[in-house]
Amino acid sequence: MTETQDELRIASSVWNLRYEVKPSDLLTIRKIVESTGFFHSYEVDIAVELVEERLRRGNSSGYHFIFAENDSSAGGYVCYGEIACTSGSYDVYWIAVTKESQGCGLGRALMKLTEERIAASGGRRIYLETSGRTDYLPTRRFYERCSYDKAAELPDFYAENDSKVIYVKDIRKT
Amino acid sequence: MTETQDELRIASSVWNLRYEVKPSDLLTIRKIVESTGFFHSYEVDIAVELVEERLRRGNSSGYHFIFAENDSSAGGYVCYGEIACTSGSYDVYWIAVTKESQGCGLGRALMKLTEERIAASGGRRIYLETSGRTDYLPTRRFYERCSYDKAAELPDFYAENDSKVIYVKDIRKT
Repeated sequence: MTETQDELRIASSVWNLRYEVKPSDLLTIRKIVESTGFFHSYEVDIAVELVEERLRRGNSSGYHFIFAENDSSAGGYVCYGEIACTSGSYDVYWIAVTKESQGCGLGRALMKLTEERIAASGGRRIYLETSGRTDYLPTRRFYERCSYDKAAELPDFYAENDSKVIYVKDIRKT
Repeated sequence: MTETQDELRIASSVWNLRYEVKPSDLLTIRKIVESTGFFHSYEVDIAVELVEERLRRGNSSGYHFIFAENDSSAGGYVCYGEIACTSGSYDVYWIAVTKESQGCGLGRALMKLTEERIAASGGRRIYLETSGRTDYLPTRRFYERCSYDKAAELPDFYAENDSKVIYVKDIRKT
């Protein structure tokens, strides 16, 4: 059995980790995602839908969560899962850190923890998808700093002149 | 309002078209998909799940269906929908024709009809995903005959040595 890490220590901060999802997370996730100032309202709704699906269907939803909390307020979260019809390919659907907790390494620490958990579940590869638009450059840079490689770019995917960029990391090689 | 085509005439055959989904389609789709002899049982289950989702959530499921029927038995079907968070990008999730109805052009006629319906809904692009394995060559050839271009290939996506190939067609150019 894999040991479950229960906190992240980053500089002087201690973040408690939680893997179970509770109904109040519908609001928690909305707050985190909105606080980034980065997402359209329909994207926020989709982030919340994934929690709903998890609350409704449990593990069989295929969505797994990690919350990093500090004095009962959440600093960030990840939502990931194995991609249907694959053997060992995972998608990180959402990774978000509140505006006020950004820049301290919480995002990278959450990504690393996610990779460890996926590897412990037998995962081989992790995929990340984001927009190729200029305003998503910080996101792409973050993925690249986390050692994800660009695997493909689909032009005009999200909208005209708004491509989808697919990143991948083979976690058996790290 | 777009005119709704109610039949497909292919050589001497007449296929009635149905766009509404009913509970008996859970079995209909299982039969069509299984009859191809092409899909794993977990893939068949996923085809059926999309109908369940449609029956449960209606149009808000995002899944649209076309059934081609002949004397009340279905010869093939398509399941398609707009991809979440995109403006005008559609995915054809499933297109399948029963073993006995294959080779008569029903698949191509269903694909053409799907493209017309997506274009009428304001769609710009259609994506198709399949495996890069040798046994999926007939599928890839079918997509290429339907004028889809290979947009990307993700190695080892489905499993080791089992890539995902992504096809795309800009339907405004056709």
